[in-house]
Amino acid sequence: MSWLSISKSSPFSLANIPFGIISTAKSTAHVPAIAIGDYALDLSVFASSGGFSPLTDFARHLDVFQQPTLNAFAALGRPVHRQVREYLQNVLRDDTSYPQVLKNNAVLQKEALLPLSEVTNHLPLQIGDYTDFYAGLNHAYNLGVILRGPDNALQPNYKHLPVGYHGRASSVVVSGTPIRRPNGQILTNPSATPKVPVFSPSKRLDIELELAAFVSRPNQMGEPVPIDEAEDHIFGLVLMNDWSARDIQAWEYVPLGPFCAKNFATTITPWVVLLDALEPFRAPGLEPGDRESLFPYLREKRAVNAYDIPLEFELKTAQGSSTVVSRSNAKNLLFSFPQMLAHHTITGCNMNPGDLLGSGTISGTESGAEGSLVEQTRGKNPITLADGSQRIFLEDGDTAILRGTAGEEGSYVGFGDCVGTILPAHVV
Amino acid sequence: MSWLSISKSSPFSLANIPFGIISTAKSTAHVPAIAIGDYALDLSVFASSGGFSPLTDFARHLDVFQQPTLNAFAALGRPVHRQVREYLQNVLRDDTSYPQVLKNNAVLQKEALLPLSEVTNHLPLQIGDYTDFYAGLNHAYNLGVILRGPDNALQPNYKHLPVGYHGRASSVVVSGTPIRRPNGQILTNPSATPKVPVFSPSKRLDIELELAAFVSRPNQMGEPVPIDEAEDHIFGLVLMNDWSARDIQAWEYVPLGPFCAKNFATTITPWVVLLDALEPFRAPGLEPGDRESLFPYLREKRAVNAYDIPLEFELKTAQGSSTVVSRSNAKNLLFSFPQMLAHHTITGCNMNPGDLLGSGTISGTESGAEGSLVEQTRGKNPITLADGSQRIFLEDGDTAILRGTAGEEGSYVGFGDCVGTILPAHVV
Ligand SMILES: [Ca+2]
Ligand SMILES: [Ca+2]
Ligand SMILES: [Mg+2]
Ligand SMILES: [Mg+2]
Ligand code: NI
Repeated sequence: MSWLSISKSSPFSLANIPFGIISTAKSTAHVPAIAIGDYALDLSVFASSGGFSPLTDFARHLDVFQQPTLNAFAALGRPVHRQVREYLQNVLRDDTSYPQVLKNNAVLQKEALLPLSEVTNHLPLQIGDYTDFYAGLNHAYNLGVILRGPDNALQPNYKHLPVGYHGRASSVVVSGTPIRRPNGQILTNPSATPKVPVFSPSKRLDIELELAAFVSRPNQMGEPVPIDEAEDHIFGLVLMNDWSARDIQAWEYVPLGPFCAKNFATTITPWVVLLDALEPFRAPGLEPGDRESLFPYLREKRAVNAYDIPLEFELKTAQGSSTVVSRSNAKNLLFSFPQMLAHHTITGCNMNPGDLLGSGTISGTESGAEGSLVEQTRGKNPITLADGSQRIFLEDGDTAILRGTAGEEGSYVGFGDCVGTILPAHVV
Repeated sequence: MSWLSISKSSPFSLANIPFGIISTAKSTAHVPAIAIGDYALDLSVFASSGGFSPLTDFARHLDVFQQPTLNAFAALGRPVHRQVREYLQNVLRDDTSYPQVLKNNAVLQKEALLPLSEVTNHLPLQIGDYTDFYAGLNHAYNLGVILRGPDNALQPNYKHLPVGYHGRASSVVVSGTPIRRPNGQILTNPSATPKVPVFSPSKRLDIELELAAFVSRPNQMGEPVPIDEAEDHIFGLVLMNDWSARDIQAWEYVPLGPFCAKNFATTITPWVVLLDALEPFRAPGLEPGDRESLFPYLREKRAVNAYDIPLEFELKTAQGSSTVVSRSNAKNLLFSFPQMLAHHTITGCNMNPGDLLGSGTISGTESGAEGSLVEQTRGKNPITLADGSQRIFLEDGDTAILRGTAGEEGSYVGFGDCVGTILPAHVV
């Protein structure tokens, strides 16, 4: 299908064309790129070498590919992203209409097509604000059962609005960045009186398996994004691990929400998968997007407002033994990203290109489909890994690997790996 | 004391020298400035005209005053801020050591000294992340009494750590920006079953009287800021109004904290008052900064860790009638900004120059010293304004004006007015 040799198992098939920011050993400059098979196509070199010449409409925007982030490209809006993606798919096809651009241009291939193994990935966009939602109903229910029992597991507001909170933008890092185990205040015996915490490294360090959306188009303060326009304000999606120190969180979060238990790190995959690439995998979410029970500002035109993206969480020990701990699916969301964006802006909050919206932890209903360790172990029942070792939470040296891949072999649309290894806590 | 005529009632006396960002009708470029009396001194013009020539150490940093924000200046660190502030005080003194720089330089005076009434203020720094704390113990107690009664007013964690949450950086605006009343989901009858919200303009729109600190020096992810170094990571303070829609907040905030009820707007004063300018007003906070009950990472060397800054909240109606609704003092804090910063980073969160930390609402213990309307009215007992009209919360057309001024007539160190006028809600 492509003149370029692409492995059938690659998440970056010709059907994908995700955008990211790379640098190389030769050039430390951060430049835009797409991932295709085992290669990155350097869009900075491609653009300045006339790669976009046939796309005459786009000529006046070429400078967006000479920037160190994708914010300017994102801000151009969905019709432009679509045009560029479809053009690049054409250029990479066997039967390309533009063979002279790259297929038959060995010089440009050599300059612009770089093995992924030789590039360094960076954050794809500069993130002004990061918000984490809680739209994974099964996760909210599982945590609610642990905290309050099954009868009151979900709070009264839960189905009326996408519950969310502001997160820490500065500590969002790209896949591969090591994660230092945090120290903090922990209440070891919640039933004692008086309640006196200890200061200690977190002993309940966990992952949260999430999707996240980058905002493309801004809105003015005081002017909400209408639900029917919200999808066109989204650039694309990444996989996200919202690292969480459960013990620090339990002590600090009343009454204003999670803070230091979350703000030490959040890991995302480097390649932004455009919504257009995910459109073939559109599938029903947990409830219809056009359900009558929603206020009009949240009611979508379409009932089918989620994506069928199988997700998995693999845990690799310091000794190198790997275990797939859980498998979930992105269908397990009660609200879509357009609904989250409509809600985020309903009071007038202004969004900017590069703002990041997390979905909330995506858990299935069955055992083995939990998007976090605390749900699977209930914080006390260990799981057994492939090498026979046990885990309730993460240990030093553990590597968490999240994956999400839609579609079928040969035409996968995936995110690649979302990876982080736990370093031991500092001695304070 | 200054060769420049400075009104005795100005918050910007020679003892202050706060830094900000301005533009003018003549030049729409955003440039650094200081406020002195009724003037702004344009530091871009001052620097490029040799104003800093006697300060030879500073020559290599002059480009920080050709930037549209103060982030680069802030990042230079406290010793440089101190040197520049003291030099500018010298230049502006009657008995200046450098009369040729400005006192006897009519041409530069004309170019660089601009009437404050003719300049437009902008956000002083680009804010990467904004965090709001809750260190006003009396406010936390007052709200706790309303929600849970006096016996459980403060949560068990409250005195162990500065409770805080991540806020929305994009909607922090400079004093004078009009504030659109938000629409949102509201539970009008909390005791009904089932709990079903309505969609409506907020009917309980409130202010929160706060101080806020800008971060100057960054720290690396995973590397907490030690408490003894934390003060030197702070650039200076501003006054802040953390606008709050109490009815939207009550419905949305469980379990992850305030979100849309806060993220529609936060107003700050434009002039950053350096900590050095506030040092003469250092005063005991609600508890000693070196108290034994704190973990070492929060224990300061000094017991006296607050500032004696009288604060007030004036409400001006659409008809122009003004009433000082409450008077408080910045001493009413349980934790200092250095303690907030040490706590914010204890799990490893990385801070950047320009990050903003709100103190939490600063209320006194007596009646008339509340930092928000909900505390003063309990959400039901109206206050009577000077024109005889009544308020429980803010009405459309109301202007909230916060002020904070330390010191005495002739040598005030103040923030100027923190102003916002309520526009009617959009019809959605
Ligand atoms: Ca999360
Ligand atoms: Ca507040
Ligand atoms: Mg996180
Ligand atoms: Mg606010
Ligand atoms: Ni931010």
